Amino acid sequence: MEIAALCGGAGVCGKCRVQLISGQLSAATVAERSFFSEDELAAGFRLACQARPLSDVKIDIPPESLSTPQRLQVEGQESAVSVDPVIEKIDLDLVPPTLHDLRSDTVRLTDALAELGVSRPFYGQPVLRTLSTELRRQGWSARLVLRRQEPMRGVTKVQPWREVVALLPRDEPTVGLAVDIGTTKMAAYLVDLSTGHTLAMDGLMNPQIAYGEDVVSRIAYANEHPEGRRVLQERLVAGVNDLTAQVCESAGVSTRQVVDAVVVGNTAIHHFFVGLPVEQLGASPYTAAVSEALDIEAEHLGLELAPGAKVYLPPNIAGYVGADHVSMLLATEAWQAREPTIALDIGTNTEISLAVDGQLLSCSCASGPAFEGAHIHAGMRAAPGAVEYVQILGDDIRVQTIGNRPAVGICGSGILDVVAELRTAGIVGPTGRLRQNHPQVVPWEGGGAFRLVEQAKTGNGHDLLVTRRDVNEIQLAKGAIRAGVDVLLSEAGLTHKDLREFIVAGAFGTYLDLKSAVSIGMFPPLPLHRFRQVGNAAGTGARQMLISATRRREAEAIVDRVRYIELTAHPGFSDIYMSAMPL
Amino acid sequence: MEIAALCGGAGVCGKCRVQLISGQLSAATVAERSFFSEDELAAGFRLACQARPLSDVKIDIPPESLSTPQRLQVEGQESAVSVDPVIEKIDLDLVPPTLHDLRSDTVRLTDALAELGVSRPFYGQPVLRTLSTELRRQGWSARLVLRRQEPMRGVTKVQPWREVVALLPRDEPTVGLAVDIGTTKMAAYLVDLSTGHTLAMDGLMNPQIAYGEDVVSRIAYANEHPEGRRVLQERLVAGVNDLTAQVCESAGVSTRQVVDAVVVGNTAIHHFFVGLPVEQLGASPYTAAVSEALDIEAEHLGLELAPGAKVYLPPNIAGYVGADHVSMLLATEAWQAREPTIALDIGTNTEISLAVDGQLLSCSCASGPAFEGAHIHAGMRAAPGAVEYVQILGDDIRVQTIGNRPAVGICGSGILDVVAELRTAGIVGPTGRLRQNHPQVVPWEGGGAFRLVEQAKTGNGHDLLVTRRDVNEIQLAKGAIRAGVDVLLSEAGLTHKDLREFIVAGAFGTYLDLKSAVSIGMFPPLPLHRFRQVGNAAGTGARQMLISATRRREAEAIVDRVRYIELTAHPGFSDIYMSAMPL
Repeated sequence: MEIAALCGGAGVCGKCRVQLISGQLSAATVAERSFFSEDELAAGFRLACQARPLSDVKIDIPPESLSTPQRLQVEGQESAVSVDPVIEKIDLDLVPPTLHDLRSDTVRLTDALAELGVSRPFYGQPVLRTLSTELRRQGWSARLVLRRQEPMRGVTKVQPWREVVALLPRDEPTVGLAVDIGTTKMAAYLVDLSTGHTLAMDGLMNPQIAYGEDVVSRIAYANEHPEGRRVLQERLVAGVNDLTAQVCESAGVSTRQVVDAVVVGNTAIHHFFVGLPVEQLGASPYTAAVSEALDIEAEHLGLELAPGAKVYLPPNIAGYVGADHVSMLLATEAWQAREPTIALDIGTNTEISLAVDGQLLSCSCASGPAFEGAHIHAGMRAAPGAVEYVQILGDDIRVQTIGNRPAVGICGSGILDVVAELRTAGIVGPTGRLRQNHPQVVPWEGGGAFRLVEQAKTGNGHDLLVTRRDVNEIQLAKGAIRAGVDVLLSEAGLTHKDLREFIVAGAFGTYLDLKSAVSIGMFPPLPLHRFRQVGNAAGTGARQMLISATRRREAEAIVDRVRYIELTAHPGFSDIYMSAMPL
Repeated sequence: MEIAALCGGAGVCGKCRVQLISGQLSAATVAERSFFSEDELAAGFRLACQARPLSDVKIDIPPESLSTPQRLQVEGQESAVSVDPVIEKIDLDLVPPTLHDLRSDTVRLTDALAELGVSRPFYGQPVLRTLSTELRRQGWSARLVLRRQEPMRGVTKVQPWREVVALLPRDEPTVGLAVDIGTTKMAAYLVDLSTGHTLAMDGLMNPQIAYGEDVVSRIAYANEHPEGRRVLQERLVAGVNDLTAQVCESAGVSTRQVVDAVVVGNTAIHHFFVGLPVEQLGASPYTAAVSEALDIEAEHLGLELAPGAKVYLPPNIAGYVGADHVSMLLATEAWQAREPTIALDIGTNTEISLAVDGQLLSCSCASGPAFEGAHIHAGMRAAPGAVEYVQILGDDIRVQTIGNRPAVGICGSGILDVVAELRTAGIVGPTGRLRQNHPQVVPWEGGGAFRLVEQAKTGNGHDLLVTRRDVNEIQLAKGAIRAGVDVLLSEAGLTHKDLREFIVAGAFGTYLDLKSAVSIGMFPPLPLHRFRQVGNAAGTGARQMLISATRRREAEAIVDRVRYIELTAHPGFSDIYMSAMPL
């Protein structure tokens, strides 16, 4: 396992945190006692560099302790949700038509279902286009896949009905597809709909990147080009089709066996995927075209799945708080927290929810792309050679890069660590000013720069610098996030001391160092055990909704519980933001 | 008016039959008394060449008495059905979104509807793709068009719900489209959904003709070419789009105002239109993929109508008795006749239904393309220069051509008349043999030919001949039709004497001479007043279903009442067919 080892096993960086599940380890060292509380030690938390096995042991390695060579994060907690998919399978033996039994193919199927006590299903056009051919190809003995269709919310007196999804050979299992589409990356999970187990997963860059790094520039592209919206929709769908083909190949199934799908993404991605107008998302007041959950025929979106498969898209909360955030709130159970809980997803926009007593307050703050490596002098994505962790102990500057390659840049968790360590070491002041007389501080436009790695040790022959402007970018970003948290707390009449849990989701949220985040004031000063880094919880939520109709209804209930706070319209926001900026 | 005048006004051909509605005409002549019964005279029936007006008069000219220069028949009786469309209009004034009211566009609409007591409608993907843009374009004051969606049949406990069809400017009326697609021709009607009135109608050749004159060859094309089915679907839809644009232009409306549509056609055309498999229609036992009524999003078929418009396709009865026949049974009310009634549509396949006591027996017989001019030596479509009516009085051979142009060929009604008159004049025997010593009978391969028009009088410089083989083709065709009628009667334990009404639909059925049809034995020897020529009743039925949800439910009920008789599997068919062949 590639375990994070910033201090090289000296027991001083605390990055290699693991948890003992079973078996016997050596006693905790002094180093470990400085990192863990008594409760944590009792729960089995240890540093991998300190603990030695005294028997066969079973260890849980949390994702944040791994140094993955490539970070298209698809992992997330496997769901512990009871399997209750919207899909049903019925194996049928039909009597073929003759000159004396000329019922149409759909009537023949419907009659066979009636004999089993199943009322007439709905046959959509994409299914009808394949049904007659499939019935004959399979010799009138086939597995009929049906979908329980819930009526739309708010319509009374309507019972669920069934829709035909596919006609498969009798021995073919049915699988489902969960997709989490981020602005930059997308992850797909292929799930066995009988067991709920994930059969394969894979990631891909979002092919829309060619049309803009962030959603704002993609919205502009869509608005400024006559075919822009169509192009962006098709690129996204092509990406999902590629990913689907990959996971199907890994799992040894055909795409026609993919009989159900759930797709989550932020509101703009959601709108692009469905082909909805985005003009109104690009200008104040940033209104979503649709916030309710949608069930859309996969074929009409251009997805290559079973002919009658539908895609479930959970509801959006607002123009900048999307279905992926809902999915995260669902997967983490934050939505039904009784005691005050913050759950957030850090990105160019950071979506934050505060749950209290089953009610939710949500907001979105423009935290900018600094944590994705943009607007940072030596910034880069989380890829091999990126500095991911930093420790400054006096004159000793320790960096760890992804893949342990010579440093070529700094990714989000690295820049966060650097700023926190610089501040702790007193090299940076509360306003972000660099101490000009420090030996590693060199002249640079805008207030100097800190030389993190000397050119001789980098992978590209240049000094790896952290500039004063970089520090200010991080201040803007962390200030926005903290201000969002504080506005929600103040709206609820709470302070951070009332928080029982602080959930951090997403790729950057998984790898960031919590102590650094608290140290620079991005997160409130809570005991570290109140934080929970949950990885790609949006993807986990998508998988849960894929295998559970109940989970879908819960996702829809979440939106009803949310009061959305538009920060730019909030009277106290500017003051709170200003006071959240200092380090 | 171009009134048929075969005998030149001598009162002997009886083609110029009209009906007095109001006013005063001269007394009936001896000639008229020989054509009409006392009842008919009392009902105002007259010959236009004999009756002179004695006051201002109002006259009904039935289509069969018109000599139309071009016969893309779109006429049919205007429906007398109460207007009860599935479409509703609601004019709304919405409050635009602000930073303090960030509801999504669909929630905003739904909330406004709720204030009017309308429960949440369903928003389909094609509508969602335009809704946000339209709301803003129309300044939040718009006409919302909704569609009442009935649940599919056989599903219990489901109430109707509403779907959003379009958002129009507040002053724009809503219209509907009814289309009757024949194998050869198609007719479209634009209907005002508030009044039920037809605003415009037009006809077009079916563009699929390039892929085969009849449906059998088009099915073969679809099966033999990988993209064949898609090509045939697209050509059909392109034709409907062209027609729609034409009727919309005539009526001065935009295609986006077309908020509902009904399409009827035979089963193969129905399957082509929806893009359904047709292999199974091309081989025994000729099974329909779908027989139930369908509601399909216009956009997903490629139709350019209002974004959320759906196309209603009434049910099919069997592989060769389609929704157009159902539509005809509906429009003529034949489906609920208490007394024995035959209703048929003559074409390459002739669909026949016998209604008794609210039950229906239906069959399809392969009458061949002779009445469409195919397989006939001088055969042609009903176009200018085609002989449409013939009378043989001793040596005097009278012909009337469409448009009164020099004869260049013979269309369906002409060939029917020729054979009937040749038989009456004794020039043709019961088996179809030509009297070789008649002065107009000339040597010709296969048993000679009758010279109908000498070359000097034709439009192409050739003798216009009717060959022995032509006569035999007509025998096969009329024998098949009569056999179909007789099989249905025998299945019901009836004879033709029990028939109260004999309804003849379709273009050829409108123009054919009933006396000739009876004379050659194609139709049973009933008094002429029991026949009813109803023109394009399928198109009329489509218009009725367009303006009336009740009519749609009735169309669906028709199929439940039908017992379909497969003639090729009927034990008595061969004998009945053989005995129906002689003239």
